[in-house]
Amino acid sequence: MNSIPRFSHYRCCLCGKEYSPDQVFYNCLVDGGNLDIILDIPTIRKNNSREAILSSAETSLWRYLPLLPVADPGYHGTPLRLAGGTPLLHPLPLEKKLGLHTLWIKDEGKNPSASFKDRASAVVVARAREIQASTVVTASTGNAGAALACMSAAVGQPAVIFAPKSAPPAKVAQLLVFGAKVILVDGNYDSAFDLTVQAAEEFGWYCRNTGYNPFTVEGKKSAAFEIWEQVLHHRTSNKPLVLFVSVGDGNIISGLHKGFKDLLELGWIEQMPRIMGVQSSGSAAIANAFFAGDEQIIPVQANTLADSISVDLPRDGVRAVRAARQTGGTYLLVEDDAILQAIATLGKVGIFAEPAGATAFAGLQLAVMNGLVTAEDDVLVMNTGNGLKDIRAAMQAVSPAPVIDPDMKSLKKYLGV
Amino acid sequence: MNSIPRFSHYRCCLCGKEYSPDQVFYNCLVDGGNLDIILDIPTIRKNNSREAILSSAETSLWRYLPLLPVADPGYHGTPLRLAGGTPLLHPLPLEKKLGLHTLWIKDEGKNPSASFKDRASAVVVARAREIQASTVVTASTGNAGAALACMSAAVGQPAVIFAPKSAPPAKVAQLLVFGAKVILVDGNYDSAFDLTVQAAEEFGWYCRNTGYNPFTVEGKKSAAFEIWEQVLHHRTSNKPLVLFVSVGDGNIISGLHKGFKDLLELGWIEQMPRIMGVQSSGSAAIANAFFAGDEQIIPVQANTLADSISVDLPRDGVRAVRAARQTGGTYLLVEDDAILQAIATLGKVGIFAEPAGATAFAGLQLAVMNGLVTAEDDVLVMNTGNGLKDIRAAMQAVSPAPVIDPDMKSLKKYLGV
Repeated sequence: MNSIPRFSHYRCCLCGKEYSPDQVFYNCLVDGGNLDIILDIPTIRKNNSREAILSSAETSLWRYLPLLPVADPGYHGTPLRLAGGTPLLHPLPLEKKLGLHTLWIKDEGKNPSASFKDRASAVVVARAREIQASTVVTASTGNAGAALACMSAAVGQPAVIFAPKSAPPAKVAQLLVFGAKVILVDGNYDSAFDLTVQAAEEFGWYCRNTGYNPFTVEGKKSAAFEIWEQVLHHRTSNKPLVLFVSVGDGNIISGLHKGFKDLLELGWIEQMPRIMGVQSSGSAAIANAFFAGDEQIIPVQANTLADSISVDLPRDGVRAVRAARQTGGTYLLVEDDAILQAIATLGKVGIFAEPAGATAFAGLQLAVMNGLVTAEDDVLVMNTGNGLKDIRAAMQAVSPAPVIDPDMKSLKKYLGV
Repeated sequence: MNSIPRFSHYRCCLCGKEYSPDQVFYNCLVDGGNLDIILDIPTIRKNNSREAILSSAETSLWRYLPLLPVADPGYHGTPLRLAGGTPLLHPLPLEKKLGLHTLWIKDEGKNPSASFKDRASAVVVARAREIQASTVVTASTGNAGAALACMSAAVGQPAVIFAPKSAPPAKVAQLLVFGAKVILVDGNYDSAFDLTVQAAEEFGWYCRNTGYNPFTVEGKKSAAFEIWEQVLHHRTSNKPLVLFVSVGDGNIISGLHKGFKDLLELGWIEQMPRIMGVQSSGSAAIANAFFAGDEQIIPVQANTLADSISVDLPRDGVRAVRAARQTGGTYLLVEDDAILQAIATLGKVGIFAEPAGATAFAGLQLAVMNGLVTAEDDVLVMNTGNGLKDIRAAMQAVSPAPVIDPDMKSLKKYLGV
């Protein structure tokens, strides 16, 4: 354990019980609730100016080190130092088509292993080094595992990944190439999750599981800090930014919410964005709880082509419900067909999103149709992963290409000229 | 045609014949030689300080606009403004393993469509807008097409892509998702190339073909400018940097060479890097010419799993031979097995390269073994594309993952504990 804790304590999101930094690793020992990592905000504010962060030369998520619960991990020149720092796109044709004041898309596909999950894995691996973990393990539908495998490879940290055997081939290929020990299970994500927790306990491995390890949210909140720098810091509108994010196990939306809460507590923003969670109608456990008006997460039989957000039992459901409820946001449900259409729509402006990434944009389209956002709104959509991660799905979003003989006669015949 | 030419003239690399900016579009009208775009270096030097470029806020290749033959294309907030600006990695385990003074890897997989080719396509599309091209067309083994499709989508430019039907599925998926008209030909890259040239002539399309359109090299040279900023500008060693780059049609190595020549002429570098071209032994037309001591490019029957550099008749062979010969470099030939091993080796430090990208690293390993580089050398290896582009190849580089039942008994049995 690090000698100087970088955070003051953990607090259970359900019962409020607090733990000291060296007391626990994962969820609340009483009720299994997700633990929030509580920073010592007054001290951070005293020791760090926002100007120092805004003028940092570091372009990755490590520019926010003063707001993270880990010490500087080093490893400059490795992919660990390239997590985060993703670009903000401003696709005018889509903005116009949707009739919005401003539309931004934050492209998380530019992360080292090509998904948002690198943010979580970078911070978890930094934590693993601090506590001198022998092995880091995670369950994953693919992206979290690829991210852990990539960040572990970057620092020479042994890693074990459990994934359902149905994970897209590109994601499995990534896991293997990054040199992790990969074990596919003849079951779904949830069965891989349970097995990972047991294996970690039995073998003394450090478990990165999403919605279980409190540090994943701390990595993911860095995207909120970037949105602050890229958008909020410059904005003059007094209407809240409207943020669309796809939701599977609920950890990304919880991470974004945590980041904005940190910024609000620091006094660096005055207003929370409205956070809109978008789920596939085939994997809607969190949206169901939101619409039921409570926080009780009832498992579903998930069935959606958006594999990254296909989850029977979301592991960070309660905080995910609150992220929308406490910020004036809501949940939206979209069909797989709408997700495929969103892949094609984003592609036409040069953005290649995986299904879970396009889900957020599909949610925006639905929100516009239903008047949940209007022409005065500034909207930011998170694209959580690169389309190269799942080309099987991409091919369903488009018509196949014709094959012709390589001569002008065949070409003209095909073109009908 | 633009009213104020951004370059003084073209010059044929074979016969030296010069053309004015509005006189030609493609290769030399006399002998078909590749045309170099000649900048007015004295004027550029007079009007631009190197300090202004070094302190530019633009992070993409457009920071080098004063050294490019196109006007500022605009399109801020689109993928066109994200081409280039790729990170430099410094993998210490590989540096140590190879016994080099310094080893850098420049990761071109971070480009918008995940390959080096975005650099060329960004500048060609900017040119296409200047000359008000109705349609841009290219032949491609996949990456150049994906790059053109992405950059065209970014600016709303209609694009047509011809690719061999054997192109990796991920690359075809990219082409289609970006909304280009995609036509697969029942033939190889060379037959797609010829058809593209004919179609461009007959239909009045603007042809981006590599080694045919002079602007591709001008886009690709931006990587040399970045190497100048990221490495050469800070270096104190008086030994030349040694640069490894994979070679297919010869256009990337020619682009890098052109960039360094521009910098030398500007007086911003004093010494050229040694440029080492690496070809697959199954696609060695340019290396063959280099080793024969002349510039005559004799076509081969290409056969390598590195599809991006599998070319029967390289279209930029002469300049590619010169890039190594004029800089004290050489050519290296590597087997497909070595390319697959290089994919796995790079993966273990968190870098996922496609076969053509890993080829350069395989060349470095061979060069170390043969004493072509030594412990005093600083080496930079270009990874030209993201491994997600070709997972079929990646899966050949690794052992498949086991599938087990999701319980501890099965796990322990697999682990042998």
